[in-house]
Amino acid sequence: MSEPVGEPVDGLAGRPAGEPAGERMHALVERLHPICRSMTGDGVRRTLEIISESIPLEVHEVPTGTPVLDWTVPREWNIRDAYVKNAAGDRVVDFARTPLHVVGYSVPVAATMPLGELRDHLHTLPGEPDLIPYRTSYYTETWGFCLSENTLKELPEGEYEVRIDSTLADGHLTYAEHVVEGSGSDEGSGAGEVLIECHTCHPALASETLAGIAVAVELARSLTEPRHTYRFVFAPGTIGSITWLARNRDRVERVRHGLVLACAGDPGGLTYKRSRRGDAAVDRAAAHVVTARGGTVVDFTPFGYDERQFCSPGFDLPVGLLTRTPNGAFPEYHTSADDPEFVTAEALADTLAAVREIVRILEDNRTYVNLFPYGEPQLGRRGLYGAPGLDQMAVLWVLNLSDGRHDLLDIAERSRIPFAEVARAARALADAALIEEAEA
Amino acid sequence: MSEPVGEPVDGLAGRPAGEPAGERMHALVERLHPICRSMTGDGVRRTLEIISESIPLEVHEVPTGTPVLDWTVPREWNIRDAYVKNAAGDRVVDFARTPLHVVGYSVPVAATMPLGELRDHLHTLPGEPDLIPYRTSYYTETWGFCLSENTLKELPEGEYEVRIDSTLADGHLTYAEHVVEGSGSDEGSGAGEVLIECHTCHPALASETLAGIAVAVELARSLTEPRHTYRFVFAPGTIGSITWLARNRDRVERVRHGLVLACAGDPGGLTYKRSRRGDAAVDRAAAHVVTARGGTVVDFTPFGYDERQFCSPGFDLPVGLLTRTPNGAFPEYHTSADDPEFVTAEALADTLAAVREIVRILEDNRTYVNLFPYGEPQLGRRGLYGAPGLDQMAVLWVLNLSDGRHDLLDIAERSRIPFAEVARAARALADAALIEEAEA
Amino acid sequence: MSEPVGEPVDGLAGRPAGEPAGERMHALVERLHPICRSMTGDGVRRTLEIISESIPLEVHEVPTGTPVLDWTVPREWNIRDAYVKNAAGDRVVDFARTPLHVVGYSVPVAATMPLGELRDHLHTLPGEPDLIPYRTSYYTETWGFCLSENTLKELPEGEYEVRIDSTLADGHLTYAEHVVEGSGSDEGSGAGEVLIECHTCHPALASETLAGIAVAVELARSLTEPRHTYRFVFAPGTIGSITWLARNRDRVERVRHGLVLACAGDPGGLTYKRSRRGDAAVDRAAAHVVTARGGTVVDFTPFGYDERQFCSPGFDLPVGLLTRTPNGAFPEYHTSADDPEFVTAEALADTLAAVREIVRILEDNRTYVNLFPYGEPQLGRRGLYGAPGLDQMAVLWVLNLSDGRHDLLDIAERSRIPFAEVARAARALADAALIEEAEA
Repeated sequence: MSEPVGEPVDGLAGRPAGEPAGERMHALVERLHPICRSMTGDGVRRTLEIISESIPLEVHEVPTGTPVLDWTVPREWNIRDAYVKNAAGDRVVDFARTPLHVVGYSVPVAATMPLGELRDHLHTLPGEPDLIPYRTSYYTETWGFCLSENTLKELPEGEYEVRIDSTLADGHLTYAEHVVEGSGSDEGSGAGEVLIECHTCHPALASETLAGIAVAVELARSLTEPRHTYRFVFAPGTIGSITWLARNRDRVERVRHGLVLACAGDPGGLTYKRSRRGDAAVDRAAAHVVTARGGTVVDFTPFGYDERQFCSPGFDLPVGLLTRTPNGAFPEYHTSADDPEFVTAEALADTLAAVREIVRILEDNRTYVNLFPYGEPQLGRRGLYGAPGLDQMAVLWVLNLSDGRHDLLDIAERSRIPFAEVARAARALADAALIEEAEA
Repeated sequence: MSEPVGEPVDGLAGRPAGEPAGERMHALVERLHPICRSMTGDGVRRTLEIISESIPLEVHEVPTGTPVLDWTVPREWNIRDAYVKNAAGDRVVDFARTPLHVVGYSVPVAATMPLGELRDHLHTLPGEPDLIPYRTSYYTETWGFCLSENTLKELPEGEYEVRIDSTLADGHLTYAEHVVEGSGSDEGSGAGEVLIECHTCHPALASETLAGIAVAVELARSLTEPRHTYRFVFAPGTIGSITWLARNRDRVERVRHGLVLACAGDPGGLTYKRSRRGDAAVDRAAAHVVTARGGTVVDFTPFGYDERQFCSPGFDLPVGLLTRTPNGAFPEYHTSADDPEFVTAEALADTLAAVREIVRILEDNRTYVNLFPYGEPQLGRRGLYGAPGLDQMAVLWVLNLSDGRHDLLDIAERSRIPFAEVARAARALADAALIEEAEA
Repeated sequence: MSEPVGEPVDGLAGRPAGEPAGERMHALVERLHPICRSMTGDGVRRTLEIISESIPLEVHEVPTGTPVLDWTVPREWNIRDAYVKNAAGDRVVDFARTPLHVVGYSVPVAATMPLGELRDHLHTLPGEPDLIPYRTSYYTETWGFCLSENTLKELPEGEYEVRIDSTLADGHLTYAEHVVEGSGSDEGSGAGEVLIECHTCHPALASETLAGIAVAVELARSLTEPRHTYRFVFAPGTIGSITWLARNRDRVERVRHGLVLACAGDPGGLTYKRSRRGDAAVDRAAAHVVTARGGTVVDFTPFGYDERQFCSPGFDLPVGLLTRTPNGAFPEYHTSADDPEFVTAEALADTLAAVREIVRILEDNRTYVNLFPYGEPQLGRRGLYGAPGLDQMAVLWVLNLSDGRHDLLDIAERSRIPFAEVARAARALADAALIEEAEA
């Protein structure tokens, strides 16, 4: 990883400069938006195919019925068409317009019924009468349609033809991994695995689901020769991370740091939710970055995305959640209004920049020992006094706190100097043989 | 203890519903108010007799001269009558109107003297000219009267007859205990003794002294089959708790939790003063309850009520002080204005409700271990997903933090969910065999 | 040390009352102000001579070339005269008016040159056009003059004669010590060395340099029979403390507490900067005193005065910095405006009073054990109940917290009672045999 923090997000080392990353991420969000994703099924496979045009993926297919921790891989759901037709034969609700119109995991139905009976299967948001809600029924066999309250109000009484052409049958749960191998060996160097996870199970939710995927893809594209190994996991929420954990139980201990990405594209500010541990390196790194960017840091709660599973007490992995406006805290959340217009290229670029700064800290954080700890060393004769491009206070802080007990992130936090400046000072001091890396 | 927190304070399990507890407590305050209590004497005995109409008491009589810790049980004081008569023979100050008129522990006097000489024995509150102050002279032999500044101003110069018909003689110090035995054994279960203490030594101070007694009595009436043993102690301040400690030195270590009750009936908000330890279970429980009720939590100070003795460094018991407006912080404090009108049934009921919630936490707090700690267990197939009457967030929090290191109160504090909801979720999870109590 | 905290700063025990200390310190500042001090040279020697009229000094002369830690003692600089003359032969810049006019460590020069060429050697403060800046060039051989921007503006083009009659040659670095021996032995009593350090290297900076010296001198005069040994060090900044540390490496561990004094005479409030440790006894003592006086306490930074050296990670001594307005935070800093008028006798007296209170805490802080820890001891029969001159709350706090784990400063902090009151209560309790000093 050779690009310093603060560089523009394009023109990454080893990559041809192309269209700006923000626009590229937004284009990916737009392209993925119409696909009907769910916990399983061909929509997920199609999503992974499109991702694999940008980064190679290893796709895993786990059969229905496979025991995974306390759960069982469910049947696979696929859907070809669905509609509600009025007496005139017009599709008043049409799956072809948006996959949100069908309750996820709806069982097949083909019937004609009066509106009064149909109503039990119709879901709206009376308080947001223009929006279509997102609904699923994973573990209760039923069927339903989602529509706007305004559309519902306009439906006259009478008979309606309802049709859901879906299948719920033995099949597979599909998830994928992309791995960027790190140069650091596992032993001694402090290097390990960094887990970046996004959920892939929601149809047509642009910021909530697709923005995180786009940021992860762009991050994966730009990682060159990192010290840590970066494992990107694209999996359905809950059951997907549970499946991944079940199949990787013996390697979970390699995870040194982790981030779940979701709600990553709206114009609001950044929010980092700490891991269950609260003081993991990723928590400190993310707090440093997000706070400096005017964002918010909140404590762990066992509700949200797949950090719930990674942070269950048996695993207790150092995995936090990075979002912009958090789940449930914006009115577009889980509705048709979370569409590509709600997501901006600027917001995606800002999320990416924050993730890259966090990664930069995870890559560059070290603990040093001052080799001249008695008094200050004479910087002038080593060309480090008032040297251009060096923050003199960062130099003094690194010298003062490099006693083997403070890492560079500690120093950045205590001095309130950006980590990048502290790391640059440390490199200069190490080059001048004034400090050396502490033994682990 | 079967009644859940939040139930009305009446209609307790196993108790006939009677007049509301608030009114019942207020009636007790009114009835006890006229009695002349002091450090010793028949006023204390009469007070205990009235209490014993509600709850059985074991009354202890400790002879004058008994060494108790660094102190000695003093002589017993009793008083039958006292007055100041003017030249016309009218009682211008009359003990029969309120026992506050006589300085506690006044030695007998029968004399006639000019006002100038009498003034040295008269105590007023010039800043609150309508109020009669409360004064004692326990360890200096003297006599005196308390009266309002306005009454004093109206006394013409001239001769006055003064008379205090008191005795200060060998006798006893009187205190009483009421014990509700707990079902929990001392070993393993975490059960122990809960000490509830009130001072009984002040005459005619309704909120300061009597409200705490009334709340303690009502609490004692309502405890049914608790896990802990509850020991209620009614004793004179300072010397009484010192006497109790001296006579119970070998059993003091059984005290797991404790509360001193005083200033418990005024309309102000609740205040909890932490024990000297500061982080005892009772401190955390009381902080949780009092804060949720909009009250204030303050650190320990070695001034106040008998928590001073329980929290002396040799004992250092986990005993805090629960008041409404604290001692010294309301203008009626230690004056004739602290009368039954100053105390409200609503305030008494609120204090009782807070004490009962604290007790509920002490009873129900447990540490659990999640038996399915790898990922979240599937709640749906166990009927715990969206189950009515269960706080879903409480369920997730209990699962996430039940690792043997967090008790339910920790979980309530961290999740900011009321303890009762957390405890209810824990019971449901334990019933579903998802968690089990951690070994101590 | 027999004078209690809070006494007037004059009339110290064993000292004849003379002119008030504030005025005396201000007179010393005025007298030292015109002298041309630098890192080395006769100006430093003259400064020490004047100090030695008040307190005996041991002066150390360390030869040029002596290795000191990572540094080497530099050549000695002396200057006799310096000026810039205009075409008419008038001294438009004259060292005789203020030593600030010459860049410290300027090499000799004798030349005539046009203003255009001379400008490269002239330093002004365009933003403060009336003030002369303070500049040095210790480790780069050059020469220069400092003058006000207004003076520079008035210089017509033309030829100027410049002359600096200086020498930069092998010689010595000069520093001095004054020691007040303490009565406490090093073992067991908790007594050790207290280091008080001032920099002596700046010419004509009244508050920044001279006020600290004046306060140190006055403190040294007033110390009588202290428990600790007080070592006052007057040395040039950076290289001086490095030299002292190099020559005292084996005794550095004796330093139990330390204060660097600088910027000690301006009318602003006090500021204490913590040692690198942050929780050393001197940090707690200074925070107690400075906070009570309305001042500010800030965390350690590795920038400022010689605390940088004492707090380098190899030494990590418990040495903080006491200033009034800190270095760089007042517009007069490092300019000709930091003159004796900027310094007030009141500010000097206030700094001295604060230092003496800190010293008083370092002297008097002890840890006691309550000999009657079970309940409160009966204070009345020992004459300690409501005793005049005793803070009753301080008495109760000392009894309550004297368990061998809290020193008097802890008790002062927790009770928010001034240390002096707490110490007085402890003396009374020790006299009454209720507490005794804890074994170390």
